[in-house]
Amino acid sequence: MIKLTPEQAVEWVEWLASYTTPEGDGVTRLLYSKEWREAQKGLQAKLEEIGFEVEYDAVGNMAATLRGSEEPDSIIATGSHIDTVVQGGKYDGQLGILCGLMAMKELVEEHGQPKKSMRLIAFAEEEGSRFPYAFWGSHNIVGMQNEELVRNADDGGVFGEPVKFVDAMHACGFDFNTSGELPFKEMDAWIELHAEQGLTLQLTGDQIGIVNAIVGQKRYTVTLTGEANHAGTTLMGYRRDAIEGFAQIVTKALARVKEIGDPLVCTFGRVDVTPNTVNVVPGKVVFSMDTRHPDQKALDVWSEELENIVKDVAAELNLEADIDMWMNEAPVPMNQEIVDLLESVCKDAGLTYRVMHSGAGHDTQIIAPHVPSAMIFIPSKDGISHNPSEYSKPEEIVDGTQVLAEAFYRLAY
Amino acid sequence: MIKLTPEQAVEWVEWLASYTTPEGDGVTRLLYSKEWREAQKGLQAKLEEIGFEVEYDAVGNMAATLRGSEEPDSIIATGSHIDTVVQGGKYDGQLGILCGLMAMKELVEEHGQPKKSMRLIAFAEEEGSRFPYAFWGSHNIVGMQNEELVRNADDGGVFGEPVKFVDAMHACGFDFNTSGELPFKEMDAWIELHAEQGLTLQLTGDQIGIVNAIVGQKRYTVTLTGEANHAGTTLMGYRRDAIEGFAQIVTKALARVKEIGDPLVCTFGRVDVTPNTVNVVPGKVVFSMDTRHPDQKALDVWSEELENIVKDVAAELNLEADIDMWMNEAPVPMNQEIVDLLESVCKDAGLTYRVMHSGAGHDTQIIAPHVPSAMIFIPSKDGISHNPSEYSKPEEIVDGTQVLAEAFYRLAY
Repeated sequence: MIKLTPEQAVEWVEWLASYTTPEGDGVTRLLYSKEWREAQKGLQAKLEEIGFEVEYDAVGNMAATLRGSEEPDSIIATGSHIDTVVQGGKYDGQLGILCGLMAMKELVEEHGQPKKSMRLIAFAEEEGSRFPYAFWGSHNIVGMQNEELVRNADDGGVFGEPVKFVDAMHACGFDFNTSGELPFKEMDAWIELHAEQGLTLQLTGDQIGIVNAIVGQKRYTVTLTGEANHAGTTLMGYRRDAIEGFAQIVTKALARVKEIGDPLVCTFGRVDVTPNTVNVVPGKVVFSMDTRHPDQKALDVWSEELENIVKDVAAELNLEADIDMWMNEAPVPMNQEIVDLLESVCKDAGLTYRVMHSGAGHDTQIIAPHVPSAMIFIPSKDGISHNPSEYSKPEEIVDGTQVLAEAFYRLAY
Repeated sequence: MIKLTPEQAVEWVEWLASYTTPEGDGVTRLLYSKEWREAQKGLQAKLEEIGFEVEYDAVGNMAATLRGSEEPDSIIATGSHIDTVVQGGKYDGQLGILCGLMAMKELVEEHGQPKKSMRLIAFAEEEGSRFPYAFWGSHNIVGMQNEELVRNADDGGVFGEPVKFVDAMHACGFDFNTSGELPFKEMDAWIELHAEQGLTLQLTGDQIGIVNAIVGQKRYTVTLTGEANHAGTTLMGYRRDAIEGFAQIVTKALARVKEIGDPLVCTFGRVDVTPNTVNVVPGKVVFSMDTRHPDQKALDVWSEELENIVKDVAAELNLEADIDMWMNEAPVPMNQEIVDLLESVCKDAGLTYRVMHSGAGHDTQIIAPHVPSAMIFIPSKDGISHNPSEYSKPEEIVDGTQVLAEAFYRLAY
């Protein structure tokens, strides 16, 4: 059993949460802000205290490494992101760093230097909350960053006047990685711990989620165009009602999604109606479709069916349909050996667990194609995330830390 | 046959349309504006030229009367409203006044003084476009005005700084009717000519619509509340998706409306989704329902069914439904004798016609409970209304004027 107590876990959470802007509820710690830089320095000090060597890459990803005694070039790594959304919580991303830090600290105190190297990475950025660019940190780890996009981006004035991405980065002492060097890319295993941000563990009562895949997702914007008409004088047979088309699409699609069954999900989250007036038949509806599945083939088969539902309903109601798929991310499978290892750890520790997919995106989906990877989930109260009220119980944080520590022990010692 | 030519009809339309604000497209002539008052004075002069005596009531309704030689207390009346929406067309309301004026002019020129009195009323206001109060003119004719509502109303700054309803009225030299007198209420017949504002006549090819009823309508605001959730991590079985409820309600309701058939109509014109974000399952949808039928019983039976569809879908999907009916206007039947008279006039004139209901509201629905009434419709190009491009052909305006003139001849001479 791990020695970490729930009270200590809470202290760590509160310590990191103290790096925040004074304004607003919850935690706001945006990329290249003062709070963000101070949090990095605070983490650096804690990691150096337990003997880790801290480095930064060109854009501000921080890596703390304790070299192994026998195979120092074999690196077992964990971590997550240090940035938050505006008025976010204390757990998203941050738990992955804190549980990593707590696990490393205990391993070193109990067992001394490992045989292989252990590394903790605090990604500079994941959320895309300040600048319109997500996964900036992990993209830079593996060389996938889009510099062109970044050179023109500004933050829209989150901290007053708009600031350019590059200026904010330079002000923190970082710059683009133009050397082509990827100092933290070579790892032998990657395990990210994260709050689930969903209801599954709460509903099943399992203590740990072991992620075996991160969903693929497709996102669409659909524009249905009919004809705006007077709500009183236009008989039903003469209408080209865009909202009728939207309603039939949603009804048919969601019935099919339920028929196909878990883990397929589909969401019509955004709906904009024109002219959006009580007494006018809607002439235009623009809406979003977000659909996800951890299996590429299942996602492709379903999304083709979904597109056909849109086309068929539009044709039947004499509407024009423009279907724009603007996101198409493949599912990312996790490494089966690490998944098996995590299962074995949970069994041995007497923790109930569930092998599951992640319905949300994580830095691990960027890392996994390059490094054998998996994720550990702990429960999120009511699935709430990106909100000051996001919460995981102290005991749950200890459980997660224990799984992470034991996995590292088996891999690195 | 009437002597009025299409060219003359166009001249009259353009003459009245010249009373407008210089800004924006189309015609803007709002209650108690300078343009509105000048249009009244222009009309007054034209009517006085042909021997009519012009009076105003307390709020600015204008009545022009030519006394009859034998039964001067029997008043046969027509008219419509002089105000427009912001950037409206040249036809809505205005045709009823112009065709009345053209018909009276020709009758007097051809046949001299009538036996009964003839009257043309230009209602001060119908649209509710400047102040949040519709049917202000006709309400005041029959003593239905809501003074309390008016005393607090302002125009929201349509002409710059917001102006109070009462101040704008006073500035035009009018005031509330506090004497209880209703100088123009006593009429023996009322016929309003109006553009159809719908597609029926264009689609059937009929030249004239004879209105035998104005629809009753109910309007609702429905709030469906579920739970906002992460679009990726919330499996379908755990969702309380408000947009799914909305979509099922619309789909079921419109299928039933089509099954029940004409003349029932139902419109979901306004939809507001919260949080309205691509990757969040909608937690709340607020939407409007507007449903109309010319028969009270049919409207009541259907609207109860509609409310039950909302309740049933909400119950099935574990959503909360709040149903607020904020408008409940009874259908208004027209006077059968006047409808018969108009049919006879059309037959004799060789004009194709269609007895139909009005799906839109008109001043006549306020007058009809007090005075035997009916309406004449002429076609609206593509059903367009409340828009600079609303249009009725000059020949159609002549046809309508002819029916109105002949009806007046039969009633007043």
